Formats: sequence, C-alpha cells, structure tokens
Amino acid sequence: MADSLNCDLKSLSPLQLFERVTEQGEKVRALKAGKAPKDEIDAAVRMLLSLKQSYKTTTGQDYQAGLPPRDLELINNGTTKEEDEDFVDPWTVQTSNAKGVDYDKLIVRFGSSKIDTDLINRIERAIGQKPHRFLRRGIFFSHRDMDQILDAYENKKSFYLYTGRGPSSQAMHVGHLIPFIFTKWLQEVFDVPLVIQLTDDEKYLWKDLTTEKAYEYARENAKDIIACGFDINKTFIFSDLDYLGSSAGFYKNIVKVQKHVTFNQVKGIFGFTDSDCIGKISFPAIQAAPSFSSSFPQIFNGKENIQCLIPCAIDQDPYFRMTRDVAPRIGMPKPALMHSVFFPALQGAQTKMSASDPNSSIFLTDTPKQIKTKINKHAFSGGRDTIEEHRKYGGNCDVDVSFMYLTFFLEDDDKLEQLKQ
Amino acid sequence: MADSLNCDLKSLSPLQLFERVTEQGEKVRALKAGKAPKDEIDAAVRMLLSLKQSYKTTTGQDYQAGLPPRDLELINNGTTKEEDEDFVDPWTVQTSNAKGVDYDKLIVRFGSSKIDTDLINRIERAIGQKPHRFLRRGIFFSHRDMDQILDAYENKKSFYLYTGRGPSSQAMHVGHLIPFIFTKWLQEVFDVPLVIQLTDDEKYLWKDLTTEKAYEYARENAKDIIACGFDINKTFIFSDLDYLGSSAGFYKNIVKVQKHVTFNQVKGIFGFTDSDCIGKISFPAIQAAPSFSSSFPQIFNGKENIQCLIPCAIDQDPYFRMTRDVAPRIGMPKPALMHSVFFPALQGAQTKMSASDPNSSIFLTDTPKQIKTKINKHAFSGGRDTIEEHRKYGGNCDVDVSFMYLTFFLEDDDKLEQLKQ
Repeated sequence: MADSLNCDLKSLSPLQLFERVTEQGEKVRALKAGKAPKDEIDAAVRMLLSLKQSYKTTTGQDYQAGLPPRDLELINNGTTKEEDEDFVDPWTVQTSNAKGVDYDKLIVRFGSSKIDTDLINRIERAIGQKPHRFLRRGIFFSHRDMDQILDAYENKKSFYLYTGRGPSSQAMHVGHLIPFIFTKWLQEVFDVPLVIQLTDDEKYLWKDLTTEKAYEYARENAKDIIACGFDINKTFIFSDLDYLGSSAGFYKNIVKVQKHVTFNQVKGIFGFTDSDCIGKISFPAIQAAPSFSSSFPQIFNGKENIQCLIPCAIDQDPYFRMTRDVAPRIGMPKPALMHSVFFPALQGAQTKMSASDPNSSIFLTDTPKQIKTKINKHAFSGGRDTIEEHRKYGGNCDVDVSFMYLTFFLEDDDKLEQLKQ
Repeated sequence: MADSLNCDLKSLSPLQLFERVTEQGEKVRALKAGKAPKDEIDAAVRMLLSLKQSYKTTTGQDYQAGLPPRDLELINNGTTKEEDEDFVDPWTVQTSNAKGVDYDKLIVRFGSSKIDTDLINRIERAIGQKPHRFLRRGIFFSHRDMDQILDAYENKKSFYLYTGRGPSSQAMHVGHLIPFIFTKWLQEVFDVPLVIQLTDDEKYLWKDLTTEKAYEYARENAKDIIACGFDINKTFIFSDLDYLGSSAGFYKNIVKVQKHVTFNQVKGIFGFTDSDCIGKISFPAIQAAPSFSSSFPQIFNGKENIQCLIPCAIDQDPYFRMTRDVAPRIGMPKPALMHSVFFPALQGAQTKMSASDPNSSIFLTDTPKQIKTKINKHAFSGGRDTIEEHRKYGGNCDVDVSFMYLTFFLEDDDKLEQLKQ
C-alpha cells in the first residue's frame, strides 16, 4: 500500500503533490471536527505525513499551507547555479547566455517533446513538400501530440489551427510574425481552418489602457496579420472584447474551464498573487477556450470534437498545459502544440524582441532606412576584440543577431551556409 | 501629520485598512530592494507600523499578510455573545432567534439606511399612490441612495430596475417571488424599464450541474417570473450563458469590473479561498455588470449614465457593495438598492426558505392540497405549552410562520390586524 502510494506520488508534479497535501489536510480537519473514530483519524494523519514527505523529497522544500510551488522556480531551485539562468513565462524571457535560452532544457522542464528528424520526415511525407525553414532550422523545436495531428490527417480527419496575439501596441515587430508566418504555411500545406485570437481584454487587464484603445490596437494588428496572406475563406480573426459578446459557444467554454481550474492552480502556473485583480486570475480560461471547436459553432457547425493544433512561442505553453489538463474533464480533446524559439532582441538573444522597448525591436512600420540605422546602431554582433580581428574573422554566428535574423528570414539554405562561412 | 493620518484611518473599513497595510509593506520592500536613502526607508517603516497599529485597534487582531478580514466576522468579533447570532451572506442565512434576523443590526453592519416613515411618505407623494404593503410592513426595510432615485424621478430623469434570480432548480418557491412582486409594483408605479438576470452560469459554477441543465432551469424559472405580470414592452429577462454571448456591452462592463477588484477584496467580501475555482472568484463581476446601463445598449441606445435601482433580498447586498465601490472608478453611476427581509422557512424564521430543502419550502408547482399538508405538518406556530392553552391564546404572532406569510401576501391591512388579534 505504502509502496504503491509512493509509486503514484512519484508521477505527480509539485503542484499536484501540493494539492494532494492540501486536500488531505482538509480531510484530517473534517474528521477531527466530525469526531471520527480514532483509528480513522490516525490513518488519515499518517497519509498526510507521508504526502508531506513526498512533497519535500520532490521540491526540496517543506509544505506550507496556502503557498503552492511555482513550477519553474521549483525546478530551478533543484538545479545547480549554472543551470539556473533561464526564466521563461508568458510575460518575461531572460537568460544570461548570449546564444539564447537553452531550449533542450526547456523541453525537459515543460515536459514537451522535441521536434526531431523523424517527426520532420513524417511531416514531409504527409504533405509531400519540403518542410518549412522554421522546421529545417529548429526554430519550431518542440511539440505536444503532433503525432496525433498527423494520424488524424493521414486518416482524412480534419483539424484546425489556433494562434493569437496580445495587441499591446499599434505596431507589431518582426518577432511577432514568426508564429503567423509558420501558421500560414501550415494552413497552406494542410488546407485547414484557422482561428486567430486577439486578446485585447488581456491587454486592457494588464496595461494602463482603456478597452477602446485595446480594441483599436487589435484592429491595427489585425491588418498586419491579414498581410501575411492567410486563406480568406478559412481564417477567422477575432478580438475577445468583440467576439465574446457575439458567440453562442465561446463563453460557455470559458465558464467550463473556469469551473475546473482553482486559484491555487493559476497561482502555481502563472505566479498570480492575492493582490492581482480577478480579471487576470480568470483570464487564462479565455486564452484556453479557442482550443475547443465548440467555441466556434459558426465555423464547425456545432461539432465539438475537432482537434486543434496551436503554433506559438514556447512562453505561451503554460496556458496550454493548463488547457490540456482541463480538456478531458470537460469532455473535449486536448489541443496539440508546436512551439517556437523566441525572436532575439537587437541587443542579443538574452531576451526576446519586445514592443515595449523600441530600441530592441524592428517594427513592421519602420522604414527601410530606420531598419538599417537600427541594425547598424544596436544589433549585437559578438564582435572580436579589435576592428582588425573583427574584419578578418567576422562576427560569431552563434551570437550575432544579424545572422540569427537571417536564419529566420532567408529561405535559401545554401546562401545561408555560405554567409555563415 | 500623525493626527490627520489617524483621523483618515478611522474612517476606513477593516478591509480598506488591510489593503493600506499591504500596500505600505510592498512599498517598504520596494524601497529596500531599490536601496533607497535610509531616511526614506525609515519614514516608510514608521508609516507601516502606524498602519499596523490602526489595523489592530480597529479589528482587535494583528495584521497577517495574505489574510484579509472577513467583514462580517470582524464586526461580529467586536460584539458581545448575545449579538453574535446572525450569519448572512449570499449563500447562508442563519440566526438562533425565532423572530428571525435582527434587521436593525444588519443595517448598521452593512452600512445601509433604514426605509423610514419619511422615505415611505416621500415615495407616496412622488407616485401619488398608497405604498406597497411590503413598504407599509417593513418587508423592504433598508436602502442605499433611494433619495437620489426620487430626486431623478421628480426631475423627470429616467432610471431603470434590475433584479435577478439564481436558477438552482426547476421550481421556484414563494420566497423567491418577494423581490419580483415588489419589482413589478415599482415598474408599474414609476413606469420604467426592467432587466432580470438569471445567473445560470453561477449555478453551473456552484452546483453539480451541466451548463445545459442550468440553462434549462433558467428557462423554466423565466416562465414563473413572466407570470408575475411585468410590462412586456419594458422588461428584458436574460440568462447569462445566453446574453453574455450576444451582447455588445455586457462583457466590456464585466471585464472593467474585473480589472478593479482584487482577489483580496472578493476574499474579504465573499470568503473565497485559494481552493475555489477561478470562475467563482470572477463571478461577482457578472452580477455587478447589469447595474450599468451600458450593459444593455439595445435597451438604452448606448446611454451609459442611466441610474439603476436594485430591489433584492439583503443577502445579495455584498455583490452591490462591491459594485458601488467600483462604479466611480470606471466612470459609472452607483446603483441604488432596496433590501427585503428573508422569507422564513416553514420551520421558522431562524433560516430562509430554501429550494434545496423541500420540507422548508412551498413551491409554485405545489398543488393547493400539497400546500395545505405542508403548512399543517411543518409550519412552526410558536405553540403554547398545552393544546388547551394554544386553543385559548392562539399562536405567537411574532414567531408564527403562517401569520408571517400573511404579512407578506394578505393585502388588506385591517383583516391582517384582525387576524393578529
């Protein structure tokens, strides 16, 4: 019994363990309050102590009521100092390594799977075309359940794509385009419907913006997104502030997700605190809901079980880990995912390009001249110690931002290799 | 300075004080982290200590980070044991007094105003009709800002009515009718629009129900509500699950409220815990939003500043205290309120009639025969010690449930007085 319990517990995440301890504590209190038989209380207390021990073994910390582990911090705490450098959540990406975040480690941390040569070859066979450069070059590097999507596709079963954007400013930058460029290619080669969520409500909640301003940004960003060239007959772009009030299915799915996620869970996943507004706390359900086809009855004729594939940057994964956890409990299929690396800031790959720092970003509205100036002035090249050496040996391609950008945007593999040499 | 601070602090509620301490603590941490000048840190620490002292004086408890006061509990803690008997929140009403909750004390606790003879006379003058028996008999006994509504009415400015129901079962009971009967009268005498919210989403979140079942209950309950005879040209009855997905204004107001209320606040007001689902935590904003006319652009032609009057049982007041707190911060008028007493259970006024206990309730679907049996079998009469005495002196009208029901439903004042004698 104790053995099988320990075996069970080993497969639990720190957060799940935390919840088991909390539940068991509540059970003990209820038994005591209800004056249950002594042996029943004793057994429950023994179980509680055993759970607390497992929690300590897994997390290296004592259980503290009301203080769930933040999954990233915990795993960081368990690693050595050198490995302790990358921080990734939906709002912040930071590493001290000039080559960027260690993505192999991120795969282990997040529990996703690597997009390896086998998978890329399988995609190539399924679509009968050369895979996109983002796949060839490891820019989309991680996935969840991509095999299921290919199984479905090979069996002529449909799926749909879902991606999105938080419209925090009028102008999008080139980094924002990465998921859209890749999604456009996926739509083209698989010929499937696509929904694009603009989370203007999120930006209203997180930033000092009015709802009107956030909605205006959503409209402006939609124009840049449309310019990527999606199939106009199979693409639905929506603002939350708009669509939530005009869909028969969206809110129903939101409230279903909201019923199945506790504050403890979002605290653990997103680091929310008691001082956060209730809008932030419930927002993850709004990003989750488009993963279910029943949020779009007008597109899928009310079909509820069409699987979803979400191409996104890896920092959005926490939302969809939560979604995948909830999906079976509300009778929906789990969405599959493909994760991209971050697009490096001009100053180097220690952080991602961010619209809130104009000097780190090349905007879609910048003129060719502005772009040239920004690259010359700000782009980190991993330069040599002297100008002579730099001219002789060139930049260091592992850290040179201009070269990194070419791996994203230059289609010709030979030319890229040539430039690297 | 210290004096004016103390003076300021005295006017704060325990919850507001709690938030001041929390904020100040965060400020001190930020100053220390930012290595601010020593005298600046010292001043901030002195302020923190002073705030903590005020918190202790007001609440009789030490400040504990993350543990806000529950307003009712706190005020209870400040009273003596005999006064400590009534518990009222949106889910539970309990008192040990057979005459029912002490409503005068509730007015003091909740900080509302008594509906006194002056106000009733003013209403009579304004409408030129005899006031409803619920006013004459103190069944609607408390209000907020009713004077403003009458000012508006006398100046030919419009207002609207908002009430609602949580559809937790197919059948409504007679207690549920009280706000609707009174609202119908208000609509008639003031000739104003009315919106009725059916919170099927709330019942889905709180109960073991599917969204379909909750929506079905909402539809069934709507029929009973319609039967009260509202003005069909001026009444809008909606289910949240339905209307949220079909209104251009409702969600925008919900998200505005959600941005301006923290988890700490709903924890203090509603007693939510970290184990509650994020749907419950954000729900209060959904009950708040119909208080703003911009949630109904189709009714008010987009006008955002039409004042709202909410007739409801007093246990719903916490939602609207929160709403009134948020309203000025999102540029909306505060809703006014009229509060009713609870409708007593058959077993006596210690608790309210509840659909979840069929023996406590007379349902609108009960046959006359069933009602007769229930009254004879269950209705508490405050009987005398012996059958002889009971026959001689009759029941005690202060606690006799059958007599209480007559005060709700018998229009004729003379007949009621006669029966009492």
